[in-house]
Amino acid sequence: MGQIKVEKNVGGIEGLAVITPTVHGDDRGYFMETYNENDMKEAGFDINFVQDNQSSSTKGVLRGLHFQKHFPQCKLVRAVRGDVFDVAVDLRSDSKTYGKWYGVELTAENKKQFLIPEGFAHGFLVLSDEAEFCYKVNDFWHPNDEGGMAWNDPEIGIKWPHVTGSYPGNADASGYALDDGTKLTLSDR
Amino acid sequence: MGQIKVEKNVGGIEGLAVITPTVHGDDRGYFMETYNENDMKEAGFDINFVQDNQSSSTKGVLRGLHFQKHFPQCKLVRAVRGDVFDVAVDLRSDSKTYGKWYGVELTAENKKQFLIPEGFAHGFLVLSDEAEFCYKVNDFWHPNDEGGMAWNDPEIGIKWPHVTGSYPGNADASGYALDDGTKLTLSDR
Ligand SMILES: Cc1cn([C@H]2C[C@H](O)[C@@H](COP(=O)(O)OP(=O)(O)O[C@H]3OC[C@@H](O)[C@H](O)[C@H]3O)O2)c(=O)[nH]c1=O
Ligand SMILES: Cc1cn([C@H]2C[C@H](O)[C@@H](COP(=O)(O)OP(=O)(O)O[C@H]3OC[C@@H](O)[C@H](O)[C@H]3O)O2)c(=O)[nH]c1=O
Repeated sequence: MGQIKVEKNVGGIEGLAVITPTVHGDDRGYFMETYNENDMKEAGFDINFVQDNQSSSTKGVLRGLHFQKHFPQCKLVRAVRGDVFDVAVDLRSDSKTYGKWYGVELTAENKKQFLIPEGFAHGFLVLSDEAEFCYKVNDFWHPNDEGGMAWNDPEIGIKWPHVTGSYPGNADASGYALDDGTKLTLSDR
Repeated sequence: MGQIKVEKNVGGIEGLAVITPTVHGDDRGYFMETYNENDMKEAGFDINFVQDNQSSSTKGVLRGLHFQKHFPQCKLVRAVRGDVFDVAVDLRSDSKTYGKWYGVELTAENKKQFLIPEGFAHGFLVLSDEAEFCYKVNDFWHPNDEGGMAWNDPEIGIKWPHVTGSYPGNADASGYALDDGTKLTLSDR
């Protein structure tokens, strides 16, 4: 039926895509297909998603950056409530854009979805008071296979929006924080 | 990993199930797997979902009852925001419980999911000011194949909760309303 708008290779990184579904509004509210295997195949994405996840987090929470080493996951991510800044870092050893990152604001309102192929680190920062985040993955969770990298790794240099204080760039100050439990202070937007 | 609780054959209707995922809460909020193909297979459900839908509706909106005639859909439904009363009606001609209905309250808080096999009519009534509803289906949308039945069909006799006025039972009064655009008046809960 072709109900998606697809922006391919966003940020000049091959394989990263931003997908926007068609929203059918009426008196009752709205309806949208948030995933359609045929539409995805037509767009060139033949992916077998096997697990769906949902997390809820408060403002300033940064989940990530995560990846699985031997069981890499392709992810299709979106916000169902609130706003997040979502980031993928290219860790594909054979990639021309190895080490490059791309970020996109995903909100319940813009309904954008971010497609992140296997071989990337992924994470997101919650910009609204609360955010509910949903995503599909094409391989199961392998806790012992998980890898993490610092959200503020100076060699990657991700520009997380609205973060106040010594960040970014001030890697000396407090060192940089790996992974879980990171909660940042955000300025007003 | 076995992260779901499964209640099978709810309402005495074979194949209907209520599924509750494990919620992992922590300082940041929570995380849950809302779908895991392996867990489902272990529970005896080998279903190939190909499309995900999301709709938003205001209080009193009743979406349904719908089914596809030649391309029946198995559905796995849940509320991601607000509360709905979700109903399935057994229309399987060879079923011992043909014509029987079962309803369950699905809320963002109870995180329950309702698994409805092929051969059922399905619909839901929004009980909260707004509700956001997500579901997976195992066949695509075939608009020309759609069937509908009245939410207040007296032969089925669904007891929709909190509905005020001439309903239920008063089928004489205004006749009964088929399908789309139904908006009911609800009493306080
Ligand atoms: C990823 C995952 C986690 N869990 C459990 C383990 C913990 O009890 C709880 C939270 O796990 P975390 O790894 O801390 O979750 P989170 O920080 O949200 O990580 C996720 O967010 C960023 C995503 O990039 C990444 O895929 C995923 O690891 O959920 C599961 O049961 N299944 C899973 O698939
Ligand atoms: C079901 C469906 C609908 N649409 C479009 C058609 C309309 O423009 C709009 C709304 O369609 P409706 O059929 O009116 O949606 P709704 O009343 O929400 O019906 C749904 O809710 C109850 C569910 O039981 C049923 O599967 C589904 O038909 O969305 C799609 O693009 N794809 C779909 O899969």
